Amino acid sequence: MRYREGLSDRPSYDVTERDWKIKINANECNLNLPPLVDERVMNRLSHVAFNRYPNDEAGDLCEQIARNFGCQKENVQLGNGSSEIIEKLFYAFGGEGNSIVYPWPSFSMYPNYAKAAEANGVVVNLSEDDYSLDVYEYIRAVRESNATLAVVCNPNNPTGNVMPLGDIEKIAKATADADCAFLVDEAYVEFGGESAAGLMKKYSHMIIARTFSKAYGLASARVGYMLADSAMAEMFGKTLMPYHMNVLSTVVADIVYQMRDEYRPRIDMMISERKRVYESLGKYDELKVFPSGTNFILLKYDRSVALNERLEKLGIGVRSFGKAPGLTNCLRVSMGTREENDTLLSAIDDFVKGSV
Amino acid sequence: MRYREGLSDRPSYDVTERDWKIKINANECNLNLPPLVDERVMNRLSHVAFNRYPNDEAGDLCEQIARNFGCQKENVQLGNGSSEIIEKLFYAFGGEGNSIVYPWPSFSMYPNYAKAAEANGVVVNLSEDDYSLDVYEYIRAVRESNATLAVVCNPNNPTGNVMPLGDIEKIAKATADADCAFLVDEAYVEFGGESAAGLMKKYSHMIIARTFSKAYGLASARVGYMLADSAMAEMFGKTLMPYHMNVLSTVVADIVYQMRDEYRPRIDMMISERKRVYESLGKYDELKVFPSGTNFILLKYDRSVALNERLEKLGIGVRSFGKAPGLTNCLRVSMGTREENDTLLSAIDDFVKGSV
Repeated sequence: MRYREGLSDRPSYDVTERDWKIKINANECNLNLPPLVDERVMNRLSHVAFNRYPNDEAGDLCEQIARNFGCQKENVQLGNGSSEIIEKLFYAFGGEGNSIVYPWPSFSMYPNYAKAAEANGVVVNLSEDDYSLDVYEYIRAVRESNATLAVVCNPNNPTGNVMPLGDIEKIAKATADADCAFLVDEAYVEFGGESAAGLMKKYSHMIIARTFSKAYGLASARVGYMLADSAMAEMFGKTLMPYHMNVLSTVVADIVYQMRDEYRPRIDMMISERKRVYESLGKYDELKVFPSGTNFILLKYDRSVALNERLEKLGIGVRSFGKAPGLTNCLRVSMGTREENDTLLSAIDDFVKGSV
Repeated sequence: MRYREGLSDRPSYDVTERDWKIKINANECNLNLPPLVDERVMNRLSHVAFNRYPNDEAGDLCEQIARNFGCQKENVQLGNGSSEIIEKLFYAFGGEGNSIVYPWPSFSMYPNYAKAAEANGVVVNLSEDDYSLDVYEYIRAVRESNATLAVVCNPNNPTGNVMPLGDIEKIAKATADADCAFLVDEAYVEFGGESAAGLMKKYSHMIIARTFSKAYGLASARVGYMLADSAMAEMFGKTLMPYHMNVLSTVVADIVYQMRDEYRPRIDMMISERKRVYESLGKYDELKVFPSGTNFILLKYDRSVALNERLEKLGIGVRSFGKAPGLTNCLRVSMGTREENDTLLSAIDDFVKGSV
């Protein structure tokens, strides 16, 4: 068989997981729907016309999102997770000869999406010390590569750090001058940092990507969205199939968004747990713990591989980066419930103090 | 902004529909879930961990499908509707310089998917008389274009006609010799014709695409699947994002597939309604009615545009092709319930006999 050039080099993804007692490896929310939301979600699902193609469900959700951001429905596009938003943006600005700039370490799919888009992926390394981005180096990379799209993830995954809004605006200005679209991936913004959404009126080449998978605990449904200038949103729309959003996920996200106040207490809880875990882990000289504006914490530890093995034996699934570039000996732990975090902390304490 | 070459020429899809009293324009099933299925679907949905990323739900459904076809899980891939299966197959075999052959008129997205895949779309026109495919002309087109992928839709949409399995096998043989993958799009096969699935053991370059949207009345959920040789299924998998299938749609399709015997009576009903509508419409000299192995009927009528307007006024939505190439003055009507079909037939009768 004669496949598209380059296809055979692309990875296949196996997302099957073992059954963890405590699963804190994917930055999920460890609580299912809040009871009031659950009730309305199930009620809404019971009214779905399963036999009909999607109709105005996606438009309704876009309208609701637009109202919240003070923009128009035409400024919003949905995706199967913000993942699809990012994949299709890379595609829209990609193609032979086009360059896309992103920091590293960051969301692990950026290089894969660049490759899938047949674009040239240009990496700007974050500081080894604190994972901060040198804005001037980043802007230089955009100019030198004559990039069509520049991306930052803020707060950044998997490092957790927050970029000041002033730095975002510096990049916004420079990319505007360079005729380069600028995507801010705000998958974790509900947990910390400041959204760049307010800059969009000033910079029409900016795009914000958001997701329902993290703060709104809806990873199962695969719903994300983007905000952009209407002309750009329309161009983006050309990358999408008709009926690309299924009705079930869309109406569930619609209810969740209507009831997003119900999520405030648990987001606050996640933030306070993050502070508690950060302080607890900060006590050990052996661990380097990075400040985080997300629902996870990155830590660096000489014995990270052995610690990960120990945690695995206890049924605790965290994300271990092993020898990944820029992340050697790093572990990323998502915030679970208070009880789950207690179990994690005591397992780490046992290990670091050498009692196991 | 500097977008991918060719993107601006691509269409945007607006799928928003008006509220029809009788909606028979999209080949949907006009009945929602059978009561027993509905009960189990809602029960299953109430057990979804909405906060978790997809895990083994897709694998479970693939395994179930594989068991039914006597193949392995590795021979099955899921898509967001068979639409995504077809889109991604075109992508996998597309790219600059590669040709994809398909008949016309057929599924309206084939040319769009070819364009999106940056492939050369090669059209083989069906006979104007009865929409049959000249197999030798088709094979010649495959050879002359040195095609990487050849596609037929059987039974064909929007014409309804069934291709004999012997013709499918002739194409299978010729495409095997030409090192050209061969996709049989069987979106409507549950309503008539014979599946080519039995040929797959003999021809490892064959691919079958199926959908839950038609016979299983699940258009809202966007679930389709393909059967292929495991090596080809693996290559196809490289076109897919991680977590591309959401959990809600996947578990609903899983229940529906487990309970597919519940659909037998309504599929039989749809087939008998199709016979009845075919015979009723066949009585008018003014109408040319095409035989169908699907859940819809194509008819040709000099006054099709006026008839469509009349039906619209009555709140009956059918698909009118206007002056579309190969389909001038054709209307496609999906089979509704018996009552809906009665209303349609009497509206057509009134119009054709000139009483309105």
